[in-house]
Amino acid sequence: MKAILAEYILDTNKVLKNKAVLIEGNIIYDIVDWEGTKDYDIDEIYGGEGYLLIPGLINAHTHVAMTKFRGLGDDLPLDIWLNEVIWPMEKEWSEEEIYKWALIGIAEAISNGSTTINDHYFFANEIAKAAKELGVRAFIGHTVMDIQGPETMNLKKGFKFFKEWKKEELITPTLAPHATDTCSKELLSEIKEFAEKENALIHMHVSQSKEEVLRVKRREGLLPVEYLRDVGILEKSFIGVHGVYLSEKEVKIYSQSGATLVHCPTSLAKLEGEIAPIIALWEKGTNIALGNDCAVSNNTMDMILEMKFAAILNKVKMGDPTKAKAKEVFYWATLGGAKALGIKAGLIEKGYLADLVLINTKKLYFLPKDNILSHLVYSAKGNDVEKVFVNGDLIYDLGKFTKLLKFF
Amino acid sequence: MKAILAEYILDTNKVLKNKAVLIEGNIIYDIVDWEGTKDYDIDEIYGGEGYLLIPGLINAHTHVAMTKFRGLGDDLPLDIWLNEVIWPMEKEWSEEEIYKWALIGIAEAISNGSTTINDHYFFANEIAKAAKELGVRAFIGHTVMDIQGPETMNLKKGFKFFKEWKKEELITPTLAPHATDTCSKELLSEIKEFAEKENALIHMHVSQSKEEVLRVKRREGLLPVEYLRDVGILEKSFIGVHGVYLSEKEVKIYSQSGATLVHCPTSLAKLEGEIAPIIALWEKGTNIALGNDCAVSNNTMDMILEMKFAAILNKVKMGDPTKAKAKEVFYWATLGGAKALGIKAGLIEKGYLADLVLINTKKLYFLPKDNILSHLVYSAKGNDVEKVFVNGDLIYDLGKFTKLLKFF
Repeated sequence: MKAILAEYILDTNKVLKNKAVLIEGNIIYDIVDWEGTKDYDIDEIYGGEGYLLIPGLINAHTHVAMTKFRGLGDDLPLDIWLNEVIWPMEKEWSEEEIYKWALIGIAEAISNGSTTINDHYFFANEIAKAAKELGVRAFIGHTVMDIQGPETMNLKKGFKFFKEWKKEELITPTLAPHATDTCSKELLSEIKEFAEKENALIHMHVSQSKEEVLRVKRREGLLPVEYLRDVGILEKSFIGVHGVYLSEKEVKIYSQSGATLVHCPTSLAKLEGEIAPIIALWEKGTNIALGNDCAVSNNTMDMILEMKFAAILNKVKMGDPTKAKAKEVFYWATLGGAKALGIKAGLIEKGYLADLVLINTKKLYFLPKDNILSHLVYSAKGNDVEKVFVNGDLIYDLGKFTKLLKFF
Repeated sequence: MKAILAEYILDTNKVLKNKAVLIEGNIIYDIVDWEGTKDYDIDEIYGGEGYLLIPGLINAHTHVAMTKFRGLGDDLPLDIWLNEVIWPMEKEWSEEEIYKWALIGIAEAISNGSTTINDHYFFANEIAKAAKELGVRAFIGHTVMDIQGPETMNLKKGFKFFKEWKKEELITPTLAPHATDTCSKELLSEIKEFAEKENALIHMHVSQSKEEVLRVKRREGLLPVEYLRDVGILEKSFIGVHGVYLSEKEVKIYSQSGATLVHCPTSLAKLEGEIAPIIALWEKGTNIALGNDCAVSNNTMDMILEMKFAAILNKVKMGDPTKAKAKEVFYWATLGGAKALGIKAGLIEKGYLADLVLINTKKLYFLPKDNILSHLVYSAKGNDVEKVFVNGDLIYDLGKFTKLLKFF
């Protein structure tokens, strides 16, 4: 049995002072006083005074391999960014390169406090290999589309990837149609059928650019969310991403569907200068999760920083300093992601997955000591993460990745 | 003579690869190849491969002692924040407490890459003592007001502080009227006269809340910037802060005055859900500087992170991903601040002050290596700072403050 001692144990339901979390196998066995650990047979003991333990953060939308392009397309209009920077570079991709940059992206995510990633990219096989090697919990879908897009993105490859990886413990394959403008009704119907048979999650971009909305309107005579509803895939197993240009009508449909909306605040503010109507969705009951998106649009894989951006950008969107609050963005980064992905994680409670992050609070910006939730959201950075546990295993320890055999 | 070797030397004018900066006394003596350092009598040598050297960042508006209140007033409407949280706590202030929390705030600013701060607070004397002890370059003004506000903020105390500290090398006293709504014409006229005689800078909040604008309008029949212009203090020596609610007319007047506007993007987005019309001011030629404001509104004293927020929040304000660019926010955080304060800093060039920050780039998020400016602005965090030099002296080194005798 492992024990993690912490001065603060924090999740969206509570703050506990000077408690220890006991881990048996991959599960949180119990929470006891520091003293109480003496009653158990503890093999490994971590943390202590000055440490904060939080549930592992869930990066609910990312393209980890795109770290390769970090810094190569800043401060450009979206169409130039895509057509003149990203797509030409992506044409040159090799499997080796994808694997290498996926390792870098995942390692960066872990070291900044993510225990779970939800990735959407082509060459999903290489990404799954990198995730497995590092020991992160990963949901991975092979990007597919049938309107524009290269041969690598055809549906058969998506299904093949799903079948090959569906028996892994930490890797869960998903279905990953690209976006509403690049996927036909026929393709989405096939995905729906496959998803129902396999009990699979569907992870898809929705309303991420004005062009997407226009193209769907022209082709289908519908708004993107109406299109998804009519195809029949907008339900609990659906993880939509961005939703920047959702109309009021779409917000209403979306919030009644049971689907999750993943908010990537930094990325879309940087790429489009826009903020999605997250508070409107949230207040109508939509499950919200949080994502870093890719390193080329963000430019860091840091979910702690993402919480600060989420809180502040939503305040700007609403012109209201009370929306969103620290506690809400922390929920989105933990329980919101867990709910979307269907895993028992995001809380530090008996019986929950032992996906945990240990943070060193012996820093000036954790003073005064009154409000640990505020300090986590508004002052901390991914750099404060010292140890990361996934499924009960220590996978990151002070700059070292314990499961990784060799970096490249 | 000291030498700092760096893989990258970066300022807003250039990137140099594998060069060394030579420091003689408090000044940059020259920039040479690594090999070229052999021709000089070097006592101390720093940096090397993997290091990035930048000009020290200038936190052009802050209240360092307010670190005491960090985390105690998040996510509240501004009036509740001020009236029910901040002001009651400030009434309890003692000199010892101010000194203690000023040390914490300044230490945090230095450790995140600031070499200069421009502070505005009452009990300025304690703040100056803390700044002197840590060795930071500091501009400090004793907050004064005559419409509402306590006795501690009277004008005589402001002038007294100025006279007592005007002969220090690293501490420059300034005049610090609080804001346009809390300072009368008579008070501002006295300040103007004193400033002209003493060649002093004036540091003042301008248009930071809707209430301020309304109150000035009611009292003077003018907008805040018109009021400042009519009093005659809106000129090159004037450092205005926030400007969140500036009208188009005020932007025009301000940009023609030669005054600086300090942008505190994180703070005002968090407190008010608002973004100042910085790009409009900038495009009309206003000098823009950047500030963290206080730790209770930000909540970190991290000027590297402030650059990222500045770039992203302005993109949102403009609905345009090209404004502001990484290079512009870097200018605001370096040369913009130096120009406001009248110091020869903000560039790494012969004859400039040796106020320098050494950053360790051996991190996953500095990969790939193509665009170091992008990585500094969009990926780095204050935590990457390893060494800070002010006036040629190493004042911060891997978590230690070299000048500080004892912390409290």
